[in-house]
Amino acid sequence: MNEPSPPVRLLIHGAAGRMGQALLRLAGERDDVDVVAAVTRSKPAQRVIDGVPHFSATELEAVPEFDVAIDFSLPQGLDPLLALCVSRGRALVSGTTGLEPEQRAALDAAAGNIPVLWASNFSLGVAILNELVARAAAALPGWDCDIVESHHVHKKDAPSGTALTLGEHARTGGAQPRYAALRAGDIIGEHTVQFTGLGERVELIHRATSRDIFARGALHAAARLRGRPPGHYRVTDLLS
Amino acid sequence: MNEPSPPVRLLIHGAAGRMGQALLRLAGERDDVDVVAAVTRSKPAQRVIDGVPHFSATELEAVPEFDVAIDFSLPQGLDPLLALCVSRGRALVSGTTGLEPEQRAALDAAAGNIPVLWASNFSLGVAILNELVARAAAALPGWDCDIVESHHVHKKDAPSGTALTLGEHARTGGAQPRYAALRAGDIIGEHTVQFTGLGERVELIHRATSRDIFARGALHAAARLRGRPPGHYRVTDLLS
Amino acid sequence: MNEPSPPVRLLIHGAAGRMGQALLRLAGERDDVDVVAAVTRSKPAQRVIDGVPHFSATELEAVPEFDVAIDFSLPQGLDPLLALCVSRGRALVSGTTGLEPEQRAALDAAAGNIPVLWASNFSLGVAILNELVARAAAALPGWDCDIVESHHVHKKDAPSGTALTLGEHARTGGAQPRYAALRAGDIIGEHTVQFTGLGERVELIHRATSRDIFARGALHAAARLRGRPPGHYRVTDLLS
Amino acid sequence: MNEPSPPVRLLIHGAAGRMGQALLRLAGERDDVDVVAAVTRSKPAQRVIDGVPHFSATELEAVPEFDVAIDFSLPQGLDPLLALCVSRGRALVSGTTGLEPEQRAALDAAAGNIPVLWASNFSLGVAILNELVARAAAALPGWDCDIVESHHVHKKDAPSGTALTLGEHARTGGAQPRYAALRAGDIIGEHTVQFTGLGERVELIHRATSRDIFARGALHAAARLRGRPPGHYRVTDLLS
Repeated sequence: MNEPSPPVRLLIHGAAGRMGQALLRLAGERDDVDVVAAVTRSKPAQRVIDGVPHFSATELEAVPEFDVAIDFSLPQGLDPLLALCVSRGRALVSGTTGLEPEQRAALDAAAGNIPVLWASNFSLGVAILNELVARAAAALPGWDCDIVESHHVHKKDAPSGTALTLGEHARTGGAQPRYAALRAGDIIGEHTVQFTGLGERVELIHRATSRDIFARGALHAAARLRGRPPGHYRVTDLLS
Repeated sequence: MNEPSPPVRLLIHGAAGRMGQALLRLAGERDDVDVVAAVTRSKPAQRVIDGVPHFSATELEAVPEFDVAIDFSLPQGLDPLLALCVSRGRALVSGTTGLEPEQRAALDAAAGNIPVLWASNFSLGVAILNELVARAAAALPGWDCDIVESHHVHKKDAPSGTALTLGEHARTGGAQPRYAALRAGDIIGEHTVQFTGLGERVELIHRATSRDIFARGALHAAARLRGRPPGHYRVTDLLS
Repeated sequence: MNEPSPPVRLLIHGAAGRMGQALLRLAGERDDVDVVAAVTRSKPAQRVIDGVPHFSATELEAVPEFDVAIDFSLPQGLDPLLALCVSRGRALVSGTTGLEPEQRAALDAAAGNIPVLWASNFSLGVAILNELVARAAAALPGWDCDIVESHHVHKKDAPSGTALTLGEHARTGGAQPRYAALRAGDIIGEHTVQFTGLGERVELIHRATSRDIFARGALHAAARLRGRPPGHYRVTDLLS
Repeated sequence: MNEPSPPVRLLIHGAAGRMGQALLRLAGERDDVDVVAAVTRSKPAQRVIDGVPHFSATELEAVPEFDVAIDFSLPQGLDPLLALCVSRGRALVSGTTGLEPEQRAALDAAAGNIPVLWASNFSLGVAILNELVARAAAALPGWDCDIVESHHVHKKDAPSGTALTLGEHARTGGAQPRYAALRAGDIIGEHTVQFTGLGERVELIHRATSRDIFARGALHAAARLRGRPPGHYRVTDLLS
């Protein structure tokens, strides 16, 4: 954090989407990153918006030098971006969901040449919670482990993907988690992992109150991914 | 946990006190420890109680072979026990509070020859919480850190010693914790360490509902202290 | 609370059981009640224990004057006690579970002549929570309502009877509660009723940390039942 | 709720501010209200925006017929609006803060002729919490009462006005609340009122995750204020 390095140059892929817009807005508030290119599926309305050069997907090859590409787009858009990152030897951060097995395989292959981070949840708080849960589970053998998650009423799947990931971390520590899911109001996301012994209880909780945390986490990860050796990374690997 | 080792032989010092009684009761429920001597300040009413040989403090030299001594007594009782542990080369677990500087120095000196664990809170849940707090603080730079503790109305000091220790762990990770203390009803002890960022929050909570957890934690630590090299240990060091 | 009335004279029925013992102990700490008779199924070991006259069930007719009988015994013991209360025109508080339909009918009939309070949960906190839940549900139409309860791992039924009663109160206000149940450690009992709207949430929580609350609530109710007109009462009716 | 009455006609005063914008947006999602006029301090950019006629403050007399005026503006803007409401015999809902004593007196005088609701917090959840707190305090004499509130780091005053109002409600029930305030991250507002007895605790919590709740509560109140007799109203009075 304290070395006087130049800002990490970012390419935002999927810049017109909700996450793309949040990434552009929040990147503008940080000193450690600099958006040098925004790529949208269709032709951008203007060439430069708020000082950021915009490109359409068909102009991808024309983007200037960058350090890390951040991608929140659609599966079909990922292939050319991945090819660009590999050909230029630059890192990729992606939160695009619904990937086909072939695309996952392409990410795996690329990770032999560049740093790749794909995640379904970029929240820093959730990343550290995963780590804490694994540690607590290992330190508290025989304690009961319960995971309770709450989300808005429009969420269909239960337990949430994040709850299942927390459960996997609990299991690495030897716990056998049980799940409960609440669907209520417009809750963005709350996860409680609870370890109960005799006469005492440890509760580890994450509460999200803004969807901005996912864009913030992606920027945080991107800022730390420049210059890393090739390979697969997780948000947890890039915590301070 | 899985090696077929014989039970750890315990000496309970301060056996007539509230903690001593809890230690005797809870040791009886475990397979990994065996109380071979209980020492009380005054002459015990009976020589053998529930199968455990009892000794008065003046008979300390006469106790049989033991592996670890657990001491919850008064400061003045600690000196002869410490001498006994050193002369026999046995470990000491102590939760006796109000020690004089000379007695702390004596513990330090003894730690050159035997394993010594002194702690003000033996709860396993609190021990792991300390570790998690240090980790979260390091991973979440710039997040606000608040520690809220609740105890019964008879507790005089605030923030609690446990809250201050949690705060020290937060500071090792770079956080600057602020404290709030509630005194209400007969709450045994609750501690919340809360890290708040933008749009998200991580809460790490410990709730105690029985004072037995302190005796359980001391037994857990004692069972893991046998055969360790000399030195100072913390409850955290003996977690699984 | 401030009128200088004489203590309410109590008969404790089922005095040898766990609740009976708690009632005797906690009644001794209060100024507003006076235990004038303790009745046990078998012949009591002593005639007077801690200043309280003891009687066996076969000596029931011989008990001195009392104002309210508190019964935590077995179904078969209830009939003669109920007859005694009716014949003497005294109130009955009962927490005995497993009653047969005929015994419930007998309680109904008695309620025509004396004050009768039967309840499965005597906690004051739970009683007020029921009332608050009904009120919140009525004031927050269209909000989602979730009830989460946690109990020790030995509890078989789920959701708990207390959770179901909370749910009934929510329904009187028009809510349609959903339930989740956790079974972990030795949790005595926790109930959360949560109303979630858009952008805000109201959580109403009860946490029990001691089983004494049930005996305390029964004493509280008994102290308020003396001199009431005949009828069925609920713990809620006797709140301040 | 079920009578087929026509929508309540609203005048939004302070329509260009953050609350005014939220009121316009959220009113558009409801069937029970219809915004017939939006008033801004300066001349509006367009005469009709999203179907709503706009007026500048100097054109106030020209607004069409309305049932209830909702005002979130500046103190100096309140006087002419109040005069308009009184002359037309229409209700006023105001959340404008920083009123001078003379303006409060003017509101009091107007309440002799029209329904007036002034509040610093329009959240429905907070309104019902106030009511529940008063009830719980009255039902739980002798229990300790603690109020903990959390807000973003930019909030200067502590405890929050909402916490103090909750405390007043607790006091009407005989409780003596103590306060704790946390300032962290961008927390919109959380209030916990906790009643602690021996062996049990009741926690009443409100969590706000969106500032929209204040606009929603004002619309809810306005929709219920039409046709009421003159007088001062509170949000609580207009709950279902």
